[in-house]
Amino acid sequence: MASTSPIFIAVIGAGGVGKCFLSQLRDLAVRRPSPKLSLCYIATSRKALYDNDYSSIDLETAVDALAKSSKTPPSLPDLVTYLTKAPGKAIIVDNTSSQDVADAYPTALKAGISVVTPNKKAFSGSYKLWQDIFQASAASGAKVYHESSVGAGLPVISTLKDLVETGDEITKIEGVFSGTMSFLFNSFAPTSGSGGKWSDEVKKAKELGYTEPDPRDDLNGLDVARKLTILARLAGLPVESPTSFPVESLIPKELESCSSGDEFLEKLPSFDKQMDEKKVSAGSKVLRFVGSIDVATKNVKVGLETFEPSHPIAALKGSDNIISFYTKRYGSNALIVQGAGAGGDVTAMGVTADLIKVINQIA
Amino acid sequence: MASTSPIFIAVIGAGGVGKCFLSQLRDLAVRRPSPKLSLCYIATSRKALYDNDYSSIDLETAVDALAKSSKTPPSLPDLVTYLTKAPGKAIIVDNTSSQDVADAYPTALKAGISVVTPNKKAFSGSYKLWQDIFQASAASGAKVYHESSVGAGLPVISTLKDLVETGDEITKIEGVFSGTMSFLFNSFAPTSGSGGKWSDEVKKAKELGYTEPDPRDDLNGLDVARKLTILARLAGLPVESPTSFPVESLIPKELESCSSGDEFLEKLPSFDKQMDEKKVSAGSKVLRFVGSIDVATKNVKVGLETFEPSHPIAALKGSDNIISFYTKRYGSNALIVQGAGAGGDVTAMGVTADLIKVINQIA
Repeated sequence: MASTSPIFIAVIGAGGVGKCFLSQLRDLAVRRPSPKLSLCYIATSRKALYDNDYSSIDLETAVDALAKSSKTPPSLPDLVTYLTKAPGKAIIVDNTSSQDVADAYPTALKAGISVVTPNKKAFSGSYKLWQDIFQASAASGAKVYHESSVGAGLPVISTLKDLVETGDEITKIEGVFSGTMSFLFNSFAPTSGSGGKWSDEVKKAKELGYTEPDPRDDLNGLDVARKLTILARLAGLPVESPTSFPVESLIPKELESCSSGDEFLEKLPSFDKQMDEKKVSAGSKVLRFVGSIDVATKNVKVGLETFEPSHPIAALKGSDNIISFYTKRYGSNALIVQGAGAGGDVTAMGVTADLIKVINQIA
Repeated sequence: MASTSPIFIAVIGAGGVGKCFLSQLRDLAVRRPSPKLSLCYIATSRKALYDNDYSSIDLETAVDALAKSSKTPPSLPDLVTYLTKAPGKAIIVDNTSSQDVADAYPTALKAGISVVTPNKKAFSGSYKLWQDIFQASAASGAKVYHESSVGAGLPVISTLKDLVETGDEITKIEGVFSGTMSFLFNSFAPTSGSGGKWSDEVKKAKELGYTEPDPRDDLNGLDVARKLTILARLAGLPVESPTSFPVESLIPKELESCSSGDEFLEKLPSFDKQMDEKKVSAGSKVLRFVGSIDVATKNVKVGLETFEPSHPIAALKGSDNIISFYTKRYGSNALIVQGAGAGGDVTAMGVTADLIKVINQIA
C-alpha cells in the first residue's frame, strides 16, 4: 500500500510553463488528496518563497506571494540540503530552461530527490552530464522524468522508453520537432498552392508569437538539434553534444552578425530568392525542416529535406510536430505521434503527467 | 529504494501473444536482474505448470514444459489464493481473451495481486465489472494496466489517462481501431485509383491472415465497439456495454445465418454491388470504418464515414490504426497516435511495457 506521508514539491521557474503547471498542480492536489502534495518551495532566478518548517504554500496565490517575497533563492546545493531534511519524499520541478539548474540534477538525485522537468539543457548538454544524471538516479532510486523536453506533452519520450525497455530495436527516428519550423514550411511550401515569400512567413510567425523574440534562435536549428540529441541518446547512441552532428542553419551567413532580431528581419527579404530556388528545385516534392536519427549508421542530422506531398511529414498542419519511430517490431510502417509540440498548457501537461508517474513510484 | 524481493509472475495464455510475451519477459529478466522476475505459474485453459514452493519456471523452456505438464489449471479463486501466499508481490499477466479470466480480476486485485493484460473483455464487458475492477484496485493498491486492449502497443490508453489525469478535457476521440478494417478500406476505397471488389478484398485479407478465421467476427464491428467502450469509459462516459450504442455491421442481413466463414465468403460477391454503391455515393471523399466518441453529447458510434482524401484517417496505410484525441488543450488540431494496432509482437510489447510500469510501482 502507498504510504500517506506528504510529497514535498519544489518548483523552480514561474514563467509561461511554470504558471500553467501551478494551475494544473492545484487541480491535481484537489483530485488526488492522498498523498498530500505540498508545495514547500517556489522560486524564480531572483526570488524565492519557502520557510524552514516546510509549510505548504497556497497553490491559489503562490505566484502573487512569490512576487511579494523578499527572499532571494538559496544556492542549488542549499536547496537540495533543505529538501533532504523535509519530513517526506521531495521532488524538484524545474520549469526553467537554465543550464545552472540542470547542472544540479545529479546532486539532487544522489540525495534521493526526484526531478521532473521540460528543461532540454539537462539532457542535451554534455554527455557527461547525461551520464551523471542517470547514474545518480540509478544509485539512489530517485526518479528523473522529462517528457516535455521533446514535443511538449506529446508521448514521445515515454513511447521511445517503452520501445527500448521492452527490447524493440529502434532503426530510425524522423520528424518535425519544431512548431516554428512546422508553421514556416507548411506556409512557405504547402502541399497545394505556391505558398508565400520566406521573409513574409518569418515575419508572420513572429507576429503570431510562434518564434523566439529573435527568430534566429529558431532558424539556427539548435532547438531541433537539442531534441535530436535527447532522442538519439535514449535510442542508445552516445551523442556528445547538439553540435557534434550536422545541423543546417537557415540564417544566411551574412545575417549572422546582425545586432538584433529586428535588423535581421529587415535584411531577410534580400535572401528570399535563395529560399525560392530551394523550393523550386524540390520539384513535385515539398521542403520540410526535419531531424533524423539513423541508429545503425549512427547518423544524426538536422536540416532541409524534401517529401512527397502524401507523406505524413509533408501533410502536417499548422505548427504541429510529428515524430515517426521506425523499429524492428513495427517494420516499414512507423509508429507515429503527432500534434502540438509547444505551448504553456501542453508543455505543463507533460510535466504534470511525469509528476504523477513519479508520485506513483515513490509514495 | 526499491526492495529486492522477487516479483512473482503468473501467466495465463500461451498463444500468439503469450509466446511473444514470454520471449520479451525472458529478455527483460536478463536486462533487469533486480528485482528478480520469477515466473511461478503458466497455464492455458487446459494445462498448468507450477509448484507449491513457487520455484521459478525456466523462461527458455516454459512453453515446452507446459505442453508436457499433466496438471490441469486450478480454479481462478484457487490461483489467487496460491499467489497471495507467494513470498513476494505477485502479478497476473492474462494473455487470453477469456471472459472467465476477466471476471476474476476483482478477486485478484482485492487480494493485492496486480493485473496486466491485453484482454478487452474485462474493460468492455458490463459496466459493473469495470467498476468492480477499479474499485478493487483503489482499495488494495494493486495495479491494473491494459494498454494493449486498444491499438496493441500503441500509446493509446496511457495517453488518454495522462490527458484525463492532468485535467485536460477530452472533447472527441475518433479513429480507425481495427487493422482488418483499415486494410480492407485502404484497398477497397484508396485515396487514388478505384480499388478492388469488396468480396475480393475480404478474401485477400483472410488469406493474408488479417481477419479472424471467420471474417464476420471482424465485419460485425464488435471488436471496434469493445475498444470504443474502453476509451469512452476512460474519458468519463459510463457506457453500459459495447452493444449499448449504434454499431454498423458490414455483414449483409442475408448472410448472418451462414453456417461457416467459408459459406459466407462464397456468397459475399452477390453483395458487392451494395458496397460499390456506397463507395460511389461518397463522391470525391473516401469510405472508412471508424469509431468516434463525442464526449459532450455522449454520442458513441461505430460505422462507415466519409473523409476527404487529405484527412489523416483517409491517408492511412496498410493495416495501421489511427487514433485522434481532440481536447481543450490541444484545440482544433488533434493529438494523433498512428501505427500497427495488431500482431503478436506489438501486442506483447504493450503488455511488457505495462508490466515494467507495475514493477516500478510495487517493487
